[in-house]
Amino acid sequence: MEPEKAVITTETDSSLTILHGAVIITMDDDSRVFRDGAIAIAGHQIKAIGQSSQILHQLSDFATEIIDLHGHILLPGFINTHVHTSQQLARGIADDVDLITWLHGRIWPYESNMTEEDSYISTLLCGIELIHSGVTCFAEAGGQHVSGMARAVKLLGLRACLTQSTMDVGEGLPSSWAARTTDDCIQSQKENYDKHNNTADGRIRVWFGIRQIMNSTERLLLETRDAARDLKTGIHMHVSEIPYENQLVMDVHKVNHGTVTYLEKIGFLQNNLLSAHTVWVDDSEISFLSRAGVKVSHCPAAAMKMLGFAPVKEMLDAGICVSLGTDGAPSNNRMSIVDEMYIASLINKGREVYTKGTTDPTALPAETILRMVTINGAKSILWDNELGSLEVGKKADIVVVNPSSWTMVPVHDCISTMVYCMRTENVVAVMCNGVWIMKDRKIQTVDEEEVISKAKEASVELIKRAGIRLSSRMSFI
Amino acid sequence: MEPEKAVITTETDSSLTILHGAVIITMDDDSRVFRDGAIAIAGHQIKAIGQSSQILHQLSDFATEIIDLHGHILLPGFINTHVHTSQQLARGIADDVDLITWLHGRIWPYESNMTEEDSYISTLLCGIELIHSGVTCFAEAGGQHVSGMARAVKLLGLRACLTQSTMDVGEGLPSSWAARTTDDCIQSQKENYDKHNNTADGRIRVWFGIRQIMNSTERLLLETRDAARDLKTGIHMHVSEIPYENQLVMDVHKVNHGTVTYLEKIGFLQNNLLSAHTVWVDDSEISFLSRAGVKVSHCPAAAMKMLGFAPVKEMLDAGICVSLGTDGAPSNNRMSIVDEMYIASLINKGREVYTKGTTDPTALPAETILRMVTINGAKSILWDNELGSLEVGKKADIVVVNPSSWTMVPVHDCISTMVYCMRTENVVAVMCNGVWIMKDRKIQTVDEEEVISKAKEASVELIKRAGIRLSSRMSFI
Repeated sequence: MEPEKAVITTETDSSLTILHGAVIITMDDDSRVFRDGAIAIAGHQIKAIGQSSQILHQLSDFATEIIDLHGHILLPGFINTHVHTSQQLARGIADDVDLITWLHGRIWPYESNMTEEDSYISTLLCGIELIHSGVTCFAEAGGQHVSGMARAVKLLGLRACLTQSTMDVGEGLPSSWAARTTDDCIQSQKENYDKHNNTADGRIRVWFGIRQIMNSTERLLLETRDAARDLKTGIHMHVSEIPYENQLVMDVHKVNHGTVTYLEKIGFLQNNLLSAHTVWVDDSEISFLSRAGVKVSHCPAAAMKMLGFAPVKEMLDAGICVSLGTDGAPSNNRMSIVDEMYIASLINKGREVYTKGTTDPTALPAETILRMVTINGAKSILWDNELGSLEVGKKADIVVVNPSSWTMVPVHDCISTMVYCMRTENVVAVMCNGVWIMKDRKIQTVDEEEVISKAKEASVELIKRAGIRLSSRMSFI
Repeated sequence: MEPEKAVITTETDSSLTILHGAVIITMDDDSRVFRDGAIAIAGHQIKAIGQSSQILHQLSDFATEIIDLHGHILLPGFINTHVHTSQQLARGIADDVDLITWLHGRIWPYESNMTEEDSYISTLLCGIELIHSGVTCFAEAGGQHVSGMARAVKLLGLRACLTQSTMDVGEGLPSSWAARTTDDCIQSQKENYDKHNNTADGRIRVWFGIRQIMNSTERLLLETRDAARDLKTGIHMHVSEIPYENQLVMDVHKVNHGTVTYLEKIGFLQNNLLSAHTVWVDDSEISFLSRAGVKVSHCPAAAMKMLGFAPVKEMLDAGICVSLGTDGAPSNNRMSIVDEMYIASLINKGREVYTKGTTDPTALPAETILRMVTINGAKSILWDNELGSLEVGKKADIVVVNPSSWTMVPVHDCISTMVYCMRTENVVAVMCNGVWIMKDRKIQTVDEEEVISKAKEASVELIKRAGIRLSSRMSFI
């Protein structure tokens, strides 16, 4: 088999790195896996991919660096399509509490008391965890201080679609948020877009955010839709999280099911909408989502803890692009897309009990899960022209996995082991935009210890400032 | 507060180790947690536990070693109450396949072709994973070649209740197994008991095993019950795994529900029974189990992949001692009790959707999960007089956790972070029976690299010998 033609443009790229000798799971349309493959990278881009022998023969003379990755497995960088980077400092503040305490007693006080510097540190800490789990790109679920997030993402070397959380209505909102008008919400998002979109060597894009239906007026929804369309960007929104939400929508908006039915009715569903969670949807709502080309971010750990069983298999069967997200630290609490793959498969096999009477161990097989964290992730963030698979012309966002440890051995099935056995310990190196941001499990872009130390301090201060008190467990003496 | 009185018997113990400066989660009846605690260990036993200052003041002069564990968290060694150590070499041979293929096409051919050496290597590899996840004691679920398991456990320095898998009836059994009579099954278990019980400094106990109801005659059940009672040991059995099992029991034995109802009818349920999985049980069966003092091993990952939702909350509410197990590598595929804690909490919070209509984020809180892997584990294996909590007189089986990494920071809730955030990476040291079997994440008792290398070879040979072929995924080129 011929490797794809290498197009080396010496004018633009002075360096050429060849990674060879690895198993390469390309996640391309043909699901090709090279048993002994190589990738040539110039600048940000993949310039060639193929059999090691052929790539080395063809390009060794032009290479500035040749790295032997024998015994390793390469994949496209994982894409986490729903993560609250601002909530990393809140890990552990809302475990084992009911939803009202979770939201009103913990999350809102926490987020509304964040400074821009808190958002920066929180995103740094979260980013470290994302990189260790092989993530090269994420979609922010909507938090505070996009400028803080952007500073962190730029430094970390990650790629991201950043989003501000907006709310223009709702009971019990913290006073600083309750004062925000619809115009404020739209205006600040446009400003974020102007300031930060396409910054950090093009690694940062800015999206629009809607927190959830219960905190949005119809005007906010429609103006967000129009503004995002004008700027050719996406909208990230929490959708159909709990039965109460659907009931409220039915009562207030006089529709016969929940949030999705209402959003369909007002013409909000578009193919630039990334609908997070999307748990409590019925068959007709799945049709609405599918027809409109809406993308869904499934967050199985958070769903189990807080929400319920999303009909993932049904959504995939209906042709909806479903990807995976970790949600935020107070909802999960692991920000590891590696663990999320494992859990997504388990949960959705188990969920079949309620549709068929028994589990279906064949549901959501490993190759489907891998698609969800790679190419489906890229499609979900409207970036699949450059991300989500290892192909010539795409960005060099690459995960290097070492499977030769007690966590994965023996590897009888190279594909399923990535989903069911791999742990963050096996993610040894990560490249984003052609730059190694982690090598030998060491982050190259920030000092982990320093970030951890700052995060500890900042989080204690923030919890104190927000007046959050946790109930005690066990008998501390 | 006074530390418990230290009883140092210089006659029997020449060494005294003091671990101090750590948070100690004792898991004792009073759920005491020392913020700055110390443990004194002589030989196999905990001789004193209390505040660091007091223990150091009282015992420093007698200590042969004093270790400062500032910044660490100590817990009782975790107990994995259902693990097929013989199946470690089979990781990945049965992913995403239906149950019949899983059993007849993969697991039976695999296990029936194992040599004693295979069981030894498989248990070594599994043991490495168990130790890395903080396990000091496990209950073998029933595999082949107890002598091979025993050799490995002795070398690893672990503690275990070993069990042979017995079957004296059943369709489609491999020929080497189909020839075994009821008498063979009982006889070989008694021989295992005579040879291996109370060996390895008392770290090994031998239990009786029943694979499952569909492979057991009534005579095997009753003679196993009587033999185990005579020898004062336990019985480990897979119970009520799938609806088909219950249906078959109803048809054959003319009872009105499933396996548990039948076992109750024939007088098999006793307080020395460790009932694994126990997924498809109704309210009256939960009462039978509770009344008889039967212990249940809940294996949430395997349950999601293969079986269904066990009524864990209901069983705990009925006073049943429920512990946690990982099951075997082809059913999970992670043999990490650390991940199992996380999943147990998630699954059982999510399962409430089907009993209440919404998830219950307060279900199975972190302290309950911690009890399941410590004191409940000890009770489940009839060893709580010496294991399951950090108390004076109990065995020195201890896990040392370092929470100061990106996986766990910030630690706002020291108890919940053990369940929701901790990963195997945070388990830095493990002591079993007073001996460090892992330090600085390095196993002290076996050479990890050598075991991994032997396991790779042995597993390839075994799969070949068993004639197991996996279907291909994606397009390898």
